[in-house]
Amino acid sequence: MACKATPTWKTLTLSKVHVVLVTPRNPLNIGAVARAISNFGFESLRLVDPYRVAMDEARSAPGAGAILVSAREYATVREAIADCELAVGTASMDLRESRLPLDRLEDAAPLVRGTPGNVALLFGSEKYGLSNDDLSFCHRLVRIPTRPEHGSMNLGQAVAVCLYELIREPGTYPPAVRRQAPSGQLDRLADGLQQVLTQVEYAQVPTTLHKLRRQLRRLHLSPKDAQAVQGMLRQILWKLGSKLS
Amino acid sequence: MACKATPTWKTLTLSKVHVVLVTPRNPLNIGAVARAISNFGFESLRLVDPYRVAMDEARSAPGAGAILVSAREYATVREAIADCELAVGTASMDLRESRLPLDRLEDAAPLVRGTPGNVALLFGSEKYGLSNDDLSFCHRLVRIPTRPEHGSMNLGQAVAVCLYELIREPGTYPPAVRRQAPSGQLDRLADGLQQVLTQVEYAQVPTTLHKLRRQLRRLHLSPKDAQAVQGMLRQILWKLGSKLS
Repeated sequence: MACKATPTWKTLTLSKVHVVLVTPRNPLNIGAVARAISNFGFESLRLVDPYRVAMDEARSAPGAGAILVSAREYATVREAIADCELAVGTASMDLRESRLPLDRLEDAAPLVRGTPGNVALLFGSEKYGLSNDDLSFCHRLVRIPTRPEHGSMNLGQAVAVCLYELIREPGTYPPAVRRQAPSGQLDRLADGLQQVLTQVEYAQVPTTLHKLRRQLRRLHLSPKDAQAVQGMLRQILWKLGSKLS
Repeated sequence: MACKATPTWKTLTLSKVHVVLVTPRNPLNIGAVARAISNFGFESLRLVDPYRVAMDEARSAPGAGAILVSAREYATVREAIADCELAVGTASMDLRESRLPLDRLEDAAPLVRGTPGNVALLFGSEKYGLSNDDLSFCHRLVRIPTRPEHGSMNLGQAVAVCLYELIREPGTYPPAVRRQAPSGQLDRLADGLQQVLTQVEYAQVPTTLHKLRRQLRRLHLSPKDAQAVQGMLRQILWKLGSKLS
C-alpha cells in the first residue's frame, strides 16, 4: 500500500548516515536494527566485531533484507568510522564520565543534518553499551530520554527511536559550510601525536590516547588543517630520529 | 546510574496513556513493548485476546518487569478501551480506507496530551495490523512516517517510536477543557442506536455498526450529552415495544 504522505528529507541525505553496531550479540536485534534502517529510508549498517554466530543467523533469517545483505563488517570502531566527519555515540543511560558533549536526542538531529559528510551513529553491545574506548572515537554523545530508574533500552528499539528522530522533521537546518576532517585522518593524527609524546616520554597509554582523540575532535579541524598538522608531526618525529608510522 | 536530565512531562499524565496490543502473537514483541513502556515512564499495558502461549511465555521470561506483571487482558477491543476518552489507532502502512482522520505521528502527540481523560494507543497484530473492526473503535489514526516501499514496522519498535514521540517534548499544549464521553459510553450508544435501527428495519450489520461508531466519535459528545442521547434511544425503543439491552 503506497502512501501519499511520504516524508521528505530536504537537507538530510539518508545515505550519508551509517548505523554502527559495536559487538552486537543477538541475531534478532541485528535483524530488528536492519529493519528500522530500511523502514525509515536509511541505507547503511556497519558492524564492529559482531558475534559470529549471531551475524550468520541474522543474515540467513527469512526476511533478512537488502540492508543486512549489504551490511559491512569491521574489526575495530576506528576502521568502521574512518570516513565519517561526525561520530555520535548513543546511550540510554547517563554517561557523564565520558566527558563528551551530551545532547538530548532531538538536539542532536540538526547536527547530523548539518554535517555535509558521512555521519556515524554508534550503538554499543546489548549488555555493556559503548566502552570508553568506543566513546573516544565519538565527537558527541546523545542520550535517549528514558527514565533514570529503567534507562537501558532494547538495541533495536533504541536504533528505531534515533532514526525516527532524524527523519521526524524535514528540517530546514542549513548545512555547515566548513568541512570536517574525517575520523580516519584524525586518528592518524592522534597516532602521530602519541608517537611524538611517547618519544618525548610524555604519553601514558591508553588514557592519553583517549584524551588526544577527544581533544582533536573538539578542534573541528578541516581536512587541510589536519594535513598541515600531520606534516608538522612528521617533521618533529624526523627530528626526534623516528619515522611516522 | 542516575541522570540529571530527567524528562519532565508537564501536561502529560503518563498513567493515563494505555498501550493496547490487539491479538499479539510473539512473546518477544510483548516483552519489548513492556520494556519500552517502562523505559519512557508510562505505566499501562493492555492486551486484547493475546495468543495464550505467547503471553505466558512473555510473563515468565527472565527480566519481565512490573509492566508485564500488571498488564491486563481483555476479550475485545471494546472492553479494553471502555474507559478511554480518546482511542488512537496506529499504522505504519497507509490505511486510507479506514476513513478516520489521519495524522502524522508528531501531530497526534498534542492531541494525546490535551485529552484530560484516559487515552488508548492501539497496535494491531504483527501480521495484520488493526482490522477494520478494531479501527471502528478509534477516533483517529496516526501513521509512523516510514517509507512506502517498506512501511511495516516491528511491533516493539513501533511502540517505542510512538511513546518516544509522546515524551519527546514536555509540551505546553493546553489541556482541552471539554470532557469527552468515554469509549464505553459511546459503544452503549452505538448499540442502542443499532437496536433502534434494526427495529425500524434500517440496519445492515456489521457495516452500519462500524459507521455508527465512527459517526459517534466524530461528534465529540460530552458524557452528559451522551447520557441524554441514551435516554432518547431508550424512549424510542420503549415506544417501539422493545427494551434497551
